[in-house]
Amino acid sequence: MEKVNMTPGKLKGLMRLADKEGKFRMLAIDQRGSLKRMLARATGKSSEEIGYRDLALAKRLVTEYLSPYFSATLMDPQFGVPESLKYLDKQSGLLIAREKSGTEAAGYNNREKKTVLLDGWSVEKIKRAGADAAKLLLYYRPDSSPEIKEYQENIVRQVGEECKKYDLPFVLEPVGYAFKDDEPGTDSPEFARKKPEIVLDITKEFSKEEYGVDILKLEFPVNLKFVEEFHKGYFDGKERKAVYTLKDAEDACFEITKASRVPWVILSAGVDIKEFVYNVEIASKEGASGFLAGRAVWKEFTKYYPNEEDMIAWLKTSGVTNYYRLYEASKEATPFYENKQFKSFANIIVKNKGENWYKEF
Amino acid sequence: MEKVNMTPGKLKGLMRLADKEGKFRMLAIDQRGSLKRMLARATGKSSEEIGYRDLALAKRLVTEYLSPYFSATLMDPQFGVPESLKYLDKQSGLLIAREKSGTEAAGYNNREKKTVLLDGWSVEKIKRAGADAAKLLLYYRPDSSPEIKEYQENIVRQVGEECKKYDLPFVLEPVGYAFKDDEPGTDSPEFARKKPEIVLDITKEFSKEEYGVDILKLEFPVNLKFVEEFHKGYFDGKERKAVYTLKDAEDACFEITKASRVPWVILSAGVDIKEFVYNVEIASKEGASGFLAGRAVWKEFTKYYPNEEDMIAWLKTSGVTNYYRLYEASKEATPFYENKQFKSFANIIVKNKGENWYKEF
Repeated sequence: MEKVNMTPGKLKGLMRLADKEGKFRMLAIDQRGSLKRMLARATGKSSEEIGYRDLALAKRLVTEYLSPYFSATLMDPQFGVPESLKYLDKQSGLLIAREKSGTEAAGYNNREKKTVLLDGWSVEKIKRAGADAAKLLLYYRPDSSPEIKEYQENIVRQVGEECKKYDLPFVLEPVGYAFKDDEPGTDSPEFARKKPEIVLDITKEFSKEEYGVDILKLEFPVNLKFVEEFHKGYFDGKERKAVYTLKDAEDACFEITKASRVPWVILSAGVDIKEFVYNVEIASKEGASGFLAGRAVWKEFTKYYPNEEDMIAWLKTSGVTNYYRLYEASKEATPFYENKQFKSFANIIVKNKGENWYKEF
Repeated sequence: MEKVNMTPGKLKGLMRLADKEGKFRMLAIDQRGSLKRMLARATGKSSEEIGYRDLALAKRLVTEYLSPYFSATLMDPQFGVPESLKYLDKQSGLLIAREKSGTEAAGYNNREKKTVLLDGWSVEKIKRAGADAAKLLLYYRPDSSPEIKEYQENIVRQVGEECKKYDLPFVLEPVGYAFKDDEPGTDSPEFARKKPEIVLDITKEFSKEEYGVDILKLEFPVNLKFVEEFHKGYFDGKERKAVYTLKDAEDACFEITKASRVPWVILSAGVDIKEFVYNVEIASKEGASGFLAGRAVWKEFTKYYPNEEDMIAWLKTSGVTNYYRLYEASKEATPFYENKQFKSFANIIVKNKGENWYKEF
């Protein structure tokens, strides 16, 4: 079989992100705005009253008690790395976010979104800090205004090039959103109907080699709250219109696998663990290489804030249990090296293999 | 207690080199010249007949079968990284050598040694390749000719500065050698007598902040073949003169611990595993933070070359057993974060801790 060249930084990075089964079972604790709101809610304060200490503590506890289980941990450089880094378990790979939290309103009716890179931060710094990958969150609609589309695509290209330069895996998280007149919001049957196509088109776009993406972190391509089997409030008690079936969800995941040039993982986007387990199970059966899960894993623990003892107790019990639920749900995930890019572990060679590769590296 | 600032790359690197007990239980397979000679001996060939394939295979097998046990693995960039990197176990940290194999004869009677950096290789590349540390082997005598001394010290300073620039731990391996008229060789009572002082002076020199060393990889400061208790051929059947006692060995290790600014580990320098277990046990009790062991761990397996099946069988049995012997022998080693530099894990903070550290990083 034909060999596939890889550079050592990218190869070692991917291996550090995956577990020994070659599957990505990763934890995200890089939330900033959404975590702030959760901690505010728990304490009856406003988001503005939640400061550095609050965020840093919550992130540190999640890192300390959950990173021993997950194959990698995604941190933000502002509130995560400075306090959490030393609590990262040795076996857990490290991803660091490149973007600033939140987006800039732009384009059509000011409802489109532009990504803002974090000022004073860079892929060079992410590599220097010892990370195994850089992650970029990107709100994106393939059918958005041409100038917004171009702007967003350029950011991806830029980060992709920097990741190549520093030989660091690039995890891109492109997320769809509602902005058109016929889209009341993401929790609407109208948007739910469009979602499979949006996620598929996103996958096709960022599978292009020019972006230099190594892992796609994707939304589940259907909204399970709108499937025939669950629409009567199975997940959150709220009844919604049925716009598709579980079979459609499977098909949509399989289409993504066919369209994606690189290994892909499922993101949790704030859904509850119950729903996320279904996401992971279906996606894994249809070719995903695992998950990168944030709030679905730990969001309940914020309710105990600021009671540190109770927060820790929750993480050590329910938090760990959530890992095992996701581990089971991803049993059939595709090891990254069995992705179509590589086909098998045996095919991977370090670029310019041979005695003199290091001179050309 | 006063906090100790660390940069994230250095902190994460050290944590990746250590195991969960904070101890360095590391494997070296960066040998080039000495491995070549061993493989030649096994096959009855000359060293020149041993090529890239032979070295790369031997290194790959050691990495594949032993890196799952050791807390980190040291590779060379020529024959190691290109073939072995993908076989490095996820939990094992990665060190890569900076120097070229062998030294340049120079100075007094041409018996002094100058380190040669590997051309076309750099700390920047070591970092880019995904390593957790750079390692430099340095033949050094504190009492050598001033120009050789300066030359060697400058190389250390240079590598130390580059490691700072790329925020990568720097493991320095300064090794004494015999070159004076009254030194017939390292296996002589004359040299054995001098050894404690040589190793101690080396420790003092490279503990200076200006070199930027993070871990000292040191020789055992006495030659156990010359101690009262073992001199009658206990290790290799050859009787030698007794020039000191086991108590002197303990004292010499303790002096090193007092003199070293940074955590230090014991190197194996080709001694047999039986002797090395004593080295590790004594050094660990007297304050070392573990070991970085090469030939003592795996040298026997080269005798089976080129029978791959037998080589693997040896590694999976005796090789693994050697790890466990060294694990036991290093039970009392000092976790790196309890070294005097840090005093305790609690004292370590990421440099410029706080919300804006990342801007200044």
